[in-house]
Amino acid sequence: MGSRTGIVVTGTEVLTGRVTDRNGPWLAERLREAGVDVAAVIVVGDRPDDVRDALSFLAGSGVDLIITSGGLGPTADDLTAQVVGEFQGRPSSLDTELEAHITAIIERLSAGRGWRLDPAATAAGTRKQAMVPDGASVLAPVGTAPGLVVPPHPDRPAPPIVVLPGPPGELQPMWPAALADPIVQQALAGAAELRQRTIRLWGTPESELAATLRAHDDVLDGLEVTTCLRDGELEIVTRFGAAAQPNYDRLAQVIAETYPRTLFSPDGRTIDDVVADALLAQGRTIATAESCTAGLLAGRLTDRPGSSAYVLGGLVVYSNAAKTELAGVPAELIERVGAVSAEVAEALARGAAGRLGADVGVGITGIAGPDGGSAEKPVGLVHFCVFGHGRTLARAVQLPGSRADVRKRAVVVALHLVRHLLSEG
Amino acid sequence: MGSRTGIVVTGTEVLTGRVTDRNGPWLAERLREAGVDVAAVIVVGDRPDDVRDALSFLAGSGVDLIITSGGLGPTADDLTAQVVGEFQGRPSSLDTELEAHITAIIERLSAGRGWRLDPAATAAGTRKQAMVPDGASVLAPVGTAPGLVVPPHPDRPAPPIVVLPGPPGELQPMWPAALADPIVQQALAGAAELRQRTIRLWGTPESELAATLRAHDDVLDGLEVTTCLRDGELEIVTRFGAAAQPNYDRLAQVIAETYPRTLFSPDGRTIDDVVADALLAQGRTIATAESCTAGLLAGRLTDRPGSSAYVLGGLVVYSNAAKTELAGVPAELIERVGAVSAEVAEALARGAAGRLGADVGVGITGIAGPDGGSAEKPVGLVHFCVFGHGRTLARAVQLPGSRADVRKRAVVVALHLVRHLLSEG
Repeated sequence: MGSRTGIVVTGTEVLTGRVTDRNGPWLAERLREAGVDVAAVIVVGDRPDDVRDALSFLAGSGVDLIITSGGLGPTADDLTAQVVGEFQGRPSSLDTELEAHITAIIERLSAGRGWRLDPAATAAGTRKQAMVPDGASVLAPVGTAPGLVVPPHPDRPAPPIVVLPGPPGELQPMWPAALADPIVQQALAGAAELRQRTIRLWGTPESELAATLRAHDDVLDGLEVTTCLRDGELEIVTRFGAAAQPNYDRLAQVIAETYPRTLFSPDGRTIDDVVADALLAQGRTIATAESCTAGLLAGRLTDRPGSSAYVLGGLVVYSNAAKTELAGVPAELIERVGAVSAEVAEALARGAAGRLGADVGVGITGIAGPDGGSAEKPVGLVHFCVFGHGRTLARAVQLPGSRADVRKRAVVVALHLVRHLLSEG
Repeated sequence: MGSRTGIVVTGTEVLTGRVTDRNGPWLAERLREAGVDVAAVIVVGDRPDDVRDALSFLAGSGVDLIITSGGLGPTADDLTAQVVGEFQGRPSSLDTELEAHITAIIERLSAGRGWRLDPAATAAGTRKQAMVPDGASVLAPVGTAPGLVVPPHPDRPAPPIVVLPGPPGELQPMWPAALADPIVQQALAGAAELRQRTIRLWGTPESELAATLRAHDDVLDGLEVTTCLRDGELEIVTRFGAAAQPNYDRLAQVIAETYPRTLFSPDGRTIDDVVADALLAQGRTIATAESCTAGLLAGRLTDRPGSSAYVLGGLVVYSNAAKTELAGVPAELIERVGAVSAEVAEALARGAAGRLGADVGVGITGIAGPDGGSAEKPVGLVHFCVFGHGRTLARAVQLPGSRADVRKRAVVVALHLVRHLLSEG
C-alpha cells in the first residue's frame, strides 16, 4: 500500500496568485524519491479556520503524515505553528533557548546587512517565532524561523505534522532534518520504492498518443501514466513500483517504435539538456540574435551551470536599428521584406554567429502581440533560422496564446531547431 | 458574510510540480474581482478517489460553489467530468450534438496544422469529451474540451460545480460564460465588493513593517493585511470591504510616512510598471549589457506590450570576448580588475548605451554560481551600473540563494537602480 502524505501550503499571497507555490511541487518530488505518495496539496490563506479545515481534511482522509509550509514569520498573519499546536492538542510555550538562538541569528544578519532594527519590535517577533507546541521537536532555523515536528496528542488519532517555513531557500535545506526525525521516519515506515520515468515527444498530438496507449493497454498494468502537453512538447510521465519495471520497458519500446521521428527524449532529459549535451559533446559554441524573444533564449541557454562552455553571448535586437547595427542585417532588406521574415531571421542567425564567432547562430523574429499583427503577418507568427556547419535550418510558425505564451513557445521551437541542426552532425 | 468558493486543480503533472498551476491563482483573482472569497485551492492527481475527496471536503466546508480545472482531455487519465457527474448523482450520457461540434473543431484544427489523425482514435477521444452529466449545462469549447456547470442533485445538498479545462488558454476565455451561467450567478448571490490594494517597499525588512503594523493596530479594523517578501521587495496586500476604506487610507498614510525612502509603489504598480512609466513619461530609451543574467533583464523589460517604444535592445556578453567585442570593454581592464568588478559593470553600461544609441544603459556582471566563486568574489556577488544623463549609479550586491535565485534577484536590483536614476530627473 505504501505511505501517503498531504501538504498544506499557507499564505494568502500564494492563494491569490501573487506568489507561485514552489514548496508543494518540491516536497512532492522529494517525497516521491523517498517512496512516499502525495494525496493532495492544499493552498489556503493566512486564516486560522482555513488552515485548521485543511488539516482536518487531510487527517480525515487517512494520510500518514501532514507537511505544512509557510506562516512561520514574525508578523501577526504568520500563525501556522500555533494553529498546528492547537490542532494536535498541544499548547505552545516559549522556548527560551530557541529564543536566544533566533536573537543571535538576527543580530548576525542585521550586522551583515547594516540594518538598524527596532529592538522591541525584533524581540516581539523573535518571541513569537520561539513558541513551541508542547512535545514538539524543533528543526534548527535556516533563516530565522525554526521548523517543527508536532506529534499527535496520545488521546487523539491524527498523523504527525511537520511544520516548515515558506521561503524555499529555508524550507529546502531544512527538509533532510525533517525527514530524519524519528517520528517522521515512523510515519513513513510503509514507504516503498516508487519509480518515475519521463519520455518527451515533439510534434505528436495528445490524441494520437492516447490511441497508442489504448491499443497497448496490455502493458499498462501497474503503470500510472500521465500525459501532458506543455509549450508544444508532449510529456509522458509514468510512475510504478519496482515489480512493474518490465511493463514500463515494454511501454517505452512501444513509444519508441511508434514515434521514431518525434521522440527526442527517451530518458527524461529536457530539450535544454539535449541541446546542452549535444553542444558539449560536439565542442560547439552558440550565439543568439533575438527580436521578439529579446533575450529569453539566451537567458534560458544560460540557466545551466557551466553553460559558459558553449554560450558565447547574444544580441537583443528589438529595434530595427539594432538589427542593422548589431547583427548586420541590411536596412534595405528589412525595408524590402519586413523585419518579420525568413530573410531577416537568416540574416540574424548568420549575424549572431559572425559577430560572436560562434559555431551555431540562432535568429528569431516575430510578432509577439497583442498589437502589431496584420492579415498577412498575424500576431503569433515567428520566423526562425539556425545557422551552423555552413548550413541553415529555417522555420516559420504560427504560435497561439498570449504575448507571454508566444515568446515562451518561440524559445522552445528555437531549441528544437538547434537540436535538429546538431543531430544532423 | 459574502460568497465563498473552493477550487480543485486536477493533474498529476501539477501535483508533482512538472507543470506550475496557473489556474488556481487566476481563478482566485477573477473571483475576488467578482466579490467572491476563495477558501482553498486543492491540487490533486488524476485519480478518481482523490478528486472525489477534494470535492467532498469543499462541499462539507460549506462553500457556495466549487470550480475544477483540468482532466477534460481525450486521454484515459482525464476523468474530471465523469467524477463530478457521479459526485453530484448525475450519470453522464453522450451529447451527440456536442460530439458533432467537437468533431468539426478537430477537423478544422488538423487541416490547419497538417496533422493526419487516426480516425478511430480521434472518434473515441471525442466521444469521451462529449459525455455530459444529466442536467448539466455545457460551456462551449475553446479548444476541443467543453466546460460544464453541474448542479447538485435535488435530493442532496451540495454546491454546484463548474468544470473547466486545464490549459489556461482554454480556461480563461471560457470563464465569462461560466460566471454568467444562471446557476453560478445564483450560487454567488451573496457576493459583496472586496477591495484589494497593494503597496510595495524596497529595502525595508519584514520585521520592521510588522512593528509598524503592531504600533498602529487601531487602524487595522476590517482590513486583512498580508505581507510577503519576494525577490527583495516587501509587498503589502490589504483586502477589505467598502466600509473599511477610511481605515485603509489611514494605513496607507502610516506606511507612506514611516517609509518615505523605501516606498516605491503606493498604488500596486510593479517595479516593471514604474520603470516603464518613467521611461515613457521622460521619452527615454534603454539598452542592456548583461553577463550573469544573460538576457533576462532585456527579456523582462520587453514583457510588456509596447515596450518597443523605449527598449532598443541589448548585449548578452557571457564570454569575456563578447564583453570586449560587443560592449567595447577593454580586454586590458578585464585582465586587470576581473570581469566581475565595478569597472567592468560601468564599461558595460556605457557600452550598451553607446552601441545602441540609448539614453540609459545598464551593465550587469556577477557570479551566479554554483561554481566560479572565490573568497574575494563569492557566488552571488553582482556588480551593477546604470548610466544615463551623463551620470552613473553603481552598486555591488551579495545575493543569496541558488543560481536561478541570484539571476532573478539581480534583474530586480537592476530595475530598482534604473528607477533611482530616472527618479533623479
